[in-house]
Amino acid sequence: MILRMSSLFVRTLRDDPNDAEVPSHRLLVRAGYIRRNAPGVYTWLPLGLRVLRKVESIIREEMDAIGAQELSFPALLPKEPYEATGRWTEYGDNIFRLQDRKGADYLLGPTHEEMFTLVVKDLYSSYKDLPLAIYQIQTKYRDEARPRAGLLRGREFVMKDSYSFDVDDAGLEASYQRHREAYIRIFDRLGFEYVIVKATSGAMGGSASEEFLAKAAVGEDTYVACTHCDYAANVEAVAVRPPAPAAYDDVPAAHAEETPDTPTIETLVDHLNEHLPREDRPWEAGDTLKNVLVVLRHPDGTKEPLAIGVPGDRDVDLRRLGGQLEPIEVEAMDETEMKNHPALVKGYIGPGVLGEQSTSGIRFLVDPRIVEGTRWVTGADVAGSHVVDMVAGRDFTPDGTIEAADVRDGDECPNCQEGTLTAARGIEMGHIFQLGRKYAEALGLQVLDENGKLVTVTMGSYGIGPSRGVAAIAENTLDEIGLCWPRAVAPADVHVVAAGKDEAVFAAAEELVGELSRQGLDVIYDDRAGKVSPGVKFKDAELIGVPTIVTVGRGLADGEVEIKDRRTGEREDVAVDAAAARLVEVVRG
Amino acid sequence: MILRMSSLFVRTLRDDPNDAEVPSHRLLVRAGYIRRNAPGVYTWLPLGLRVLRKVESIIREEMDAIGAQELSFPALLPKEPYEATGRWTEYGDNIFRLQDRKGADYLLGPTHEEMFTLVVKDLYSSYKDLPLAIYQIQTKYRDEARPRAGLLRGREFVMKDSYSFDVDDAGLEASYQRHREAYIRIFDRLGFEYVIVKATSGAMGGSASEEFLAKAAVGEDTYVACTHCDYAANVEAVAVRPPAPAAYDDVPAAHAEETPDTPTIETLVDHLNEHLPREDRPWEAGDTLKNVLVVLRHPDGTKEPLAIGVPGDRDVDLRRLGGQLEPIEVEAMDETEMKNHPALVKGYIGPGVLGEQSTSGIRFLVDPRIVEGTRWVTGADVAGSHVVDMVAGRDFTPDGTIEAADVRDGDECPNCQEGTLTAARGIEMGHIFQLGRKYAEALGLQVLDENGKLVTVTMGSYGIGPSRGVAAIAENTLDEIGLCWPRAVAPADVHVVAAGKDEAVFAAAEELVGELSRQGLDVIYDDRAGKVSPGVKFKDAELIGVPTIVTVGRGLADGEVEIKDRRTGEREDVAVDAAAARLVEVVRG
Repeated sequence: MILRMSSLFVRTLRDDPNDAEVPSHRLLVRAGYIRRNAPGVYTWLPLGLRVLRKVESIIREEMDAIGAQELSFPALLPKEPYEATGRWTEYGDNIFRLQDRKGADYLLGPTHEEMFTLVVKDLYSSYKDLPLAIYQIQTKYRDEARPRAGLLRGREFVMKDSYSFDVDDAGLEASYQRHREAYIRIFDRLGFEYVIVKATSGAMGGSASEEFLAKAAVGEDTYVACTHCDYAANVEAVAVRPPAPAAYDDVPAAHAEETPDTPTIETLVDHLNEHLPREDRPWEAGDTLKNVLVVLRHPDGTKEPLAIGVPGDRDVDLRRLGGQLEPIEVEAMDETEMKNHPALVKGYIGPGVLGEQSTSGIRFLVDPRIVEGTRWVTGADVAGSHVVDMVAGRDFTPDGTIEAADVRDGDECPNCQEGTLTAARGIEMGHIFQLGRKYAEALGLQVLDENGKLVTVTMGSYGIGPSRGVAAIAENTLDEIGLCWPRAVAPADVHVVAAGKDEAVFAAAEELVGELSRQGLDVIYDDRAGKVSPGVKFKDAELIGVPTIVTVGRGLADGEVEIKDRRTGEREDVAVDAAAARLVEVVRG
Repeated sequence: MILRMSSLFVRTLRDDPNDAEVPSHRLLVRAGYIRRNAPGVYTWLPLGLRVLRKVESIIREEMDAIGAQELSFPALLPKEPYEATGRWTEYGDNIFRLQDRKGADYLLGPTHEEMFTLVVKDLYSSYKDLPLAIYQIQTKYRDEARPRAGLLRGREFVMKDSYSFDVDDAGLEASYQRHREAYIRIFDRLGFEYVIVKATSGAMGGSASEEFLAKAAVGEDTYVACTHCDYAANVEAVAVRPPAPAAYDDVPAAHAEETPDTPTIETLVDHLNEHLPREDRPWEAGDTLKNVLVVLRHPDGTKEPLAIGVPGDRDVDLRRLGGQLEPIEVEAMDETEMKNHPALVKGYIGPGVLGEQSTSGIRFLVDPRIVEGTRWVTGADVAGSHVVDMVAGRDFTPDGTIEAADVRDGDECPNCQEGTLTAARGIEMGHIFQLGRKYAEALGLQVLDENGKLVTVTMGSYGIGPSRGVAAIAENTLDEIGLCWPRAVAPADVHVVAAGKDEAVFAAAEELVGELSRQGLDVIYDDRAGKVSPGVKFKDAELIGVPTIVTVGRGLADGEVEIKDRRTGEREDVAVDAAAARLVEVVRG
């Protein structure tokens, strides 16, 4: 196929679009792949659509290869199944709701667990029908609070979602592994740098859960990897290994100390080292217990205060906290809200006024490191005063633990305890997890087992975002001059530039392009005549990012054309007669 | 590819679904192609999706072949462009509207004229960029008042919509013809009976307009074809050839006659023949002028009465009337509304009280046959009284003409005037028309012409409904035992039934199926063992409707399998070794 720049529906832009926050967005707009219609809502222009379709095709092939069967659900969905599972409410503002002319409630499907579950319930009834894997590649909708970064967080987007259905846990484990291997093949074929990390399963429920992240500095997800073992996890999913409980027989009774003007950990530590120095070692932030107040916003709109205790050398990571609590949303407690709880003395909040049984009644969860016997300096709930030798389990008992403290470069690996963790950022492109029986139970999906007994089916859930994926791959592969696609998803195999004004240049280029097309290659051919200079054509080629750029120009006098690798910049002069054969070799490897 | 019935995600049903109104809907559900989720909203199961994709692929290939370029717009669209063209209001209740979390208004796109116009405005600016043809295959939404007949009138459906952009009318004409030819190739390839008819362009504006209808008795559209020339038109688009104005110097003055108890045309004609017989010929219904009252419902919700005068031997066809008035909706005037207009005497309404200048102020439009000089018996606006010798243009002057009278078998062909019209029913599957400059003007799509002058672009609009098409093709091709697909869109090439319990049957079938798959054929293989009888398998094969059914069974004792043509029922016994080769021949023609 030949895409002629003279008629291809594309216009490249010299300037960055105003609303582009990340390089991939900037370049996808500038190179004419997408256009924005509304926040988080985009049009796919021909070049963009070609990339999207290639991503989808690779996914489809690998899904079919593991025997998953494609179907397609509507996006416009009736409310009832989502009410049955509670998600009509749980999604809060995050879904688009609408009514038809008769006043019936609908939503635009954000995910289709309910529909998959119900269609299997409709069609199947026996263990003999299982295992089953079905999938769709379909447009989904989420009313994101902050659509951003172009396709990376859109409100209308394409998803491949598949589900496995098994009669027992061993079956689910096998289905999960089959999908995991298919995902690895998909991501390998797509041809960019990705990492598989442990994940939380968020609002979906379920147990084992892994994400496939595109490595990218602008990614919204932070993951950590161990320097020693193969542990890698989304920070939201990192589970700290708690220390063993400590003996505290020798610890003196907790006692309040005057600590004027010490509302921060830093001022507190300075004060302690100046006025209450220890003999063995100086006070450090890690000796203090910091109690952070947040507000939970439940999907039904109600709010609830929550106190989180973490060692003073750590902060509460709201995303990590949010990851544990989905679909509940979390925000820091502001001054106004703080005033509703007179027991809280800002800068000096201690466990004395926290906990469901306390005067404040505010639930109090602590970092898993705060185990029984650990000893802390913490607020005395009086301005200018802290309590020293406060022992967990003796002097205070939290309502539970939660993974909310930030994870940092250099933290101990919770898996091997030998290496340390290193953090990096990525874009979530795929997510697989063992969903279990949550939806099957809510919607009554049961089959008869070998003994004629009804058993609830267990499900796996496996998603990839092809539209986000296009941006993620772009983000992972672009460079300072433009997009730079992996061969498998590039909008064409070769970009031929006719660089010159001579008839001969266009004639030679035309012949080459024709031959490449006959050989089954997809070619972008910059056949623009007139005022478009070779310089403009080269810049456009580099911006558009097809892996191989061919220049038919000055070298023609010597019977040669130039083949350039877009990524490495390596150039090679080839006899014009040998060019087609050489290009087929380059493209097909 | 091999689709094994033992694992294919399908369940055939013995009984018709309760809500199925037409044969295609009944069979598509029973054969496991689709499932309903809400009124007019369907899930495509694997077999259905395969047919849909084949229809889409044929469309895509022929669109690409005429140089149309594929892109993809979102379904979730901001209100503003639709406000600019007035359609936000015009669509009335027929579109789904929704708001996002910030209260911004959106619609689910019912068609994308605005988006196509704006994207060309965004990218292009010169006559050199034109002609351009762009298209998408995408999911659309309409909140139909009466979703019906399964996929035939859905609320979520797939459309291929393309638009051409030209600098002048000659360009549009050429683009239109190019699309028309592509459509003919598409419909020929799809392989069912269709007809191309003149059409109205409805709410879209524009001039030349043709529809591609699938012939089907259950179709919502009625079209007529001439017995003599190649004229064919949707009845909505039939333009009656008005007679020449008649001389009326000799016609006596209009005079009222007592016609007690003649509220209907039939009673009136009887009365006239009994009490006021004519010498030359008896009175007929066609001598009378029937005045029918309807109510127009404008998109903004306001109502307006309208009177339509038609010869008494014809009825007002509300669909035909509606076709002229879109997006205004039309309904018969009921008794309650009638009472709001005291001048109207039911059964005796005449032009005396009709017209914008009359006492009632009700707009009065007449059939084009009611030309100047024609002579009528019509209501005297007094119970039991009619006016005779009422001459159009002398005794009454309507506000205008409108095509609202019904069109009937045997009517004169308005094209050749030699043949007569014959009516039949069809399902609209495609619609092409010359849209003109309506959208370009509303949204300011202009380009510089050769002389550097800004000119408004002229557009063509070309739609095909692939999802409705699946049902239309099914409807056109099915028979009393099931679906019966044209080869080009069948979910598989061959349906192989292993009919028997012997190992040998399954072994031979397996070998045949494997060979067919290696030859590139798609095969449904009914490999179900156990309790599924050959009879059940045959019934399923006939219901599913793959064009070629192969039975591996009893004949195997003689080394033969049976090949059956699903449509004709013709059977052929073939040596098992020769079966694959023969089937490839049958399939590939």
